[in-house]
Amino acid sequence: MAPARTDTVRTRLLARLGGRRRTLHIGGVDAAELAARFGTPLYVYDAEILRAQVAAVRKAFGARLDVLYAVKANPCVAVAQVLRAAGTGAELASAGEIHVAHAAGFAGAHMHFAGPAKSVVDLETALDLGVSTVNLESASEHARLARLARARGARPGVAIRVNPNRETSGARVRMAGGSKKFGVDEDAVVELARAIVRTDQCELRGLHVYTGSQSFDAGAWVAAAERLYALGQDVERAVGHRLASLNFGGGFGIPCFDGDPTFDLAAAGRGLRALVGASRRGPRCHLELGRYLVAEAGVFLTRVLETKRSSGKDFALLDGGMHQFGAAAGLGAVIKRPYPIVACGRPRADKTAPWTLAGPLCTPADEFGVDVALPSLQAGDLIAVLVAGAYGLTFSPTGFLSHPTPAEVLVDGGTVRLARQRGRPEDSLRGQTW
Amino acid sequence: MAPARTDTVRTRLLARLGGRRRTLHIGGVDAAELAARFGTPLYVYDAEILRAQVAAVRKAFGARLDVLYAVKANPCVAVAQVLRAAGTGAELASAGEIHVAHAAGFAGAHMHFAGPAKSVVDLETALDLGVSTVNLESASEHARLARLARARGARPGVAIRVNPNRETSGARVRMAGGSKKFGVDEDAVVELARAIVRTDQCELRGLHVYTGSQSFDAGAWVAAAERLYALGQDVERAVGHRLASLNFGGGFGIPCFDGDPTFDLAAAGRGLRALVGASRRGPRCHLELGRYLVAEAGVFLTRVLETKRSSGKDFALLDGGMHQFGAAAGLGAVIKRPYPIVACGRPRADKTAPWTLAGPLCTPADEFGVDVALPSLQAGDLIAVLVAGAYGLTFSPTGFLSHPTPAEVLVDGGTVRLARQRGRPEDSLRGQTW
Repeated sequence: MAPARTDTVRTRLLARLGGRRRTLHIGGVDAAELAARFGTPLYVYDAEILRAQVAAVRKAFGARLDVLYAVKANPCVAVAQVLRAAGTGAELASAGEIHVAHAAGFAGAHMHFAGPAKSVVDLETALDLGVSTVNLESASEHARLARLARARGARPGVAIRVNPNRETSGARVRMAGGSKKFGVDEDAVVELARAIVRTDQCELRGLHVYTGSQSFDAGAWVAAAERLYALGQDVERAVGHRLASLNFGGGFGIPCFDGDPTFDLAAAGRGLRALVGASRRGPRCHLELGRYLVAEAGVFLTRVLETKRSSGKDFALLDGGMHQFGAAAGLGAVIKRPYPIVACGRPRADKTAPWTLAGPLCTPADEFGVDVALPSLQAGDLIAVLVAGAYGLTFSPTGFLSHPTPAEVLVDGGTVRLARQRGRPEDSLRGQTW
Repeated sequence: MAPARTDTVRTRLLARLGGRRRTLHIGGVDAAELAARFGTPLYVYDAEILRAQVAAVRKAFGARLDVLYAVKANPCVAVAQVLRAAGTGAELASAGEIHVAHAAGFAGAHMHFAGPAKSVVDLETALDLGVSTVNLESASEHARLARLARARGARPGVAIRVNPNRETSGARVRMAGGSKKFGVDEDAVVELARAIVRTDQCELRGLHVYTGSQSFDAGAWVAAAERLYALGQDVERAVGHRLASLNFGGGFGIPCFDGDPTFDLAAAGRGLRALVGASRRGPRCHLELGRYLVAEAGVFLTRVLETKRSSGKDFALLDGGMHQFGAAAGLGAVIKRPYPIVACGRPRADKTAPWTLAGPLCTPADEFGVDVALPSLQAGDLIAVLVAGAYGLTFSPTGFLSHPTPAEVLVDGGTVRLARQRGRPEDSLRGQTW
């Protein structure tokens, strides 16, 4: 079996800790230079890795497949622009994400919209910006969308999000199977398809399934795709027309913690190609990928404000923390495990010792790692948390303790541009009236 | 023993679900009216409950004590204004919080600043706005502050945050004892006090301890206060002058989940009064309280967008979720338990059934409760999550899936005012450049 793509990216990043002083290069630029120029804490995204991930997925799945970027993983417009230029569409989960995709230059024809409880504003924004496919999560959502569409004289494309009868094994976060808030129970899909066609206010374009996130089992993923494909044929027979699109979801796992497996992208690609064939007939196939495209492209840079020894243990107190990279501090995780962390610029000859990396918040939960083996640290040192491109800034309680929001930059083959301005302390008053 | 104060507030709120239709009144105003006027999701704060909590603390602790409001619990300026008018000072954890306190009208003389990794901007803001006491967390922080103060010709007041040798039992979130990122190890406090006096760039005003949050053991809290008091006497002997202030922290628990105990405020007050005596001599005593003052004053209102039955289970899909009230969805908790939740406006005669309350996010983690006993629900119904005044909006990943930020309102004896404007979907682009 070929070495998994994701290993390659990670290994390459760590290998860049080159030279006697372990310099970290991101997209050809020294991390220390980025930190000096833009300040810390700072998110840095590498456009080359974004493109490489899209290319790897394309290679595995072939020409029948369109890749949608799940903007929820990172709604940074600059990141979305790179992925659009690499040929992806956009999978969106709110009116706000539709605005991000629009700003990044995605045409409505390449936007899909899913979400278990879409508001009126969500649905209206989807209609206004011409989102090609609204993934319906219930019969009553169909009724709500049809009512809004009728009032506007619109005829939106829709797909039915399917909740399969059985849970798919293999995903760490399961979003389908059994009783779920997501989608339409499998047994009710054909009936809703008939109702959509009968009501004739929306164009029934296809089916959608999303079984879960951080799946490392390509076989289970292919099995779920096979069930969706079969259900698509049932629907086609029932409504008497061909479906334009089948969206098989995604959720391919990215290794982040010690001992994590890798997702066998080649096996998933072979499975899907065997299922849908190579011909141009039949529905267009979609994959939606967020974390898989962006996680490894991101690095979170934070600086040591000071070090402290307390009861014999060494602490490095950082200028960044849980409020800025919640997932790396274990927020939302059942078991707290450290992300891959490196100290930039320390002499390679240094011995390592156990360091606890703590952020500035007044809570013991604000730690990126306990007893992490690192070279000796001192105030001013630069710490890089890897695998920071997905569910970083936006899965963080940025208002917690009212610190400024970090800046974000995009590095592309040696050129650097600001993607998000650093916040200011006075932003704590934004939107407030008194 | 007198019935605990916190029970009274909660019971009173629930008792307000009066009449045949279970109308919820907040500060004398019908929650349905607030939701109709300001939209949902919405945070509502009741000024009367804020004042009642301050009064209860005052009554228990007596005149020797100053109450500081820990703004981190809720940096809503309107809430801070009510507490200032009720006579509290402000305990602050960042430059952003200093700006909130300033906007709420707190004088620098009533501001205290603590935090384990204060940035240059944090310290400069404290100097610029005349914060009376900076709680130093290390000798190197003293050196950094002294350097900045010297450059400005300032002489800031400081206290030493103590990390006691032993962990204090009784607090759910422990922030002192053993090796910690917080404060100065107890054994090193006298030495740092001497250094502060010797350097003579800062005025040594006192000591500070904060043992942890959600403490339900008044006896353990008093024991920690006794240790701080004794250490204060050691420091006074060592430096040869009286300390102006002792800050005993807070962290008094608020019952939120079924079976939670109540904190015995009267016992804590008796313990502290016995310790410091009734005379006006000796250091001024401070308590810092966040959750205890504001938690029960807040209600989070969210509306049912639609209901769904999946594999025999009933789901109410809400317009608000984990991104707006993370703690109520279990974010940051080891064990996920539902906050107190009520359905407003349902006929009292309705039978209850198990409902899962799910938010709009594309993650199964976005649920306020599984199988919560509620009357039959339908689209448009208003759901109230209680105990929502502390660590609500700001302990939430508000950018997650790019939904607009909820509005906040303050109700004061029948009058209502907007405290935070509702966000817009386009806010997802704020600060971004492309």
